[in-house]
Amino acid sequence: MSDTINPAERTAKAPITKHDGPVVLVNRFVVDPSRDAAFVSLWERTSHYFRARPGYMSLRLHRALSPDATHRYVNVATWSSAAAFRAAHETNEFFEVVGQPAWAEFPSNPTLYEIITDDDAGSE
Amino acid sequence: MSDTINPAERTAKAPITKHDGPVVLVNRFVVDPSRDAAFVSLWERTSHYFRARPGYMSLRLHRALSPDATHRYVNVATWSSAAAFRAAHETNEFFEVVGQPAWAEFPSNPTLYEIITDDDAGSE
Repeated sequence: MSDTINPAERTAKAPITKHDGPVVLVNRFVVDPSRDAAFVSLWERTSHYFRARPGYMSLRLHRALSPDATHRYVNVATWSSAAAFRAAHETNEFFEVVGQPAWAEFPSNPTLYEIITDDDAGSE
Repeated sequence: MSDTINPAERTAKAPITKHDGPVVLVNRFVVDPSRDAAFVSLWERTSHYFRARPGYMSLRLHRALSPDATHRYVNVATWSSAAAFRAAHETNEFFEVVGQPAWAEFPSNPTLYEIITDDDAGSE
């Protein structure tokens, strides 16, 4: 998919087939560096909605260090299941949150993933 | 930056200014679903090089569940510092690994990030 500011497309498409196990949302955002503070403030307020939903496990917001990044911010959020992810993105409150006019300034590109390989040198 | 198959561009651009603390590589790959096995095999072999480098901390390889994903695979790898990341991407062995002809089939888009917000509901 392309970067979008359409609230109806602010949700990663969940798989049509049944999927067991955790899922990971990778959501990239286009942000002008001069608008860092406005973006982070809006994102933090929005994230409170997700953090309170059943099945939410973790999130990390990343800001680009590479000078040629097409997406200055990337959110990586883990959910316990595709069903929990979907449920959190179908409520009226969700559509109110992502429908805020302020979001129109920051196109996003949400995609849902499963984890294929997981290696942590620190846990060995 | 755009997706690339140029070995010289297979490395995320590190920041020009000094950066302290961990850095996160988000590297997206374009892969045809029919080539899943070939990609994962190549990626796993390549990842052994990085896992053995000083400053390597962790990695996760993700495969898309969303049917409209532009990038079927995303690797999220954490390094202890931008300097360690850079050092691992400047060796002769690195250029041998990413210069393998097999990689030409899988364009990638590597970008380096810092972590702005880190929340884990399970650790609260």
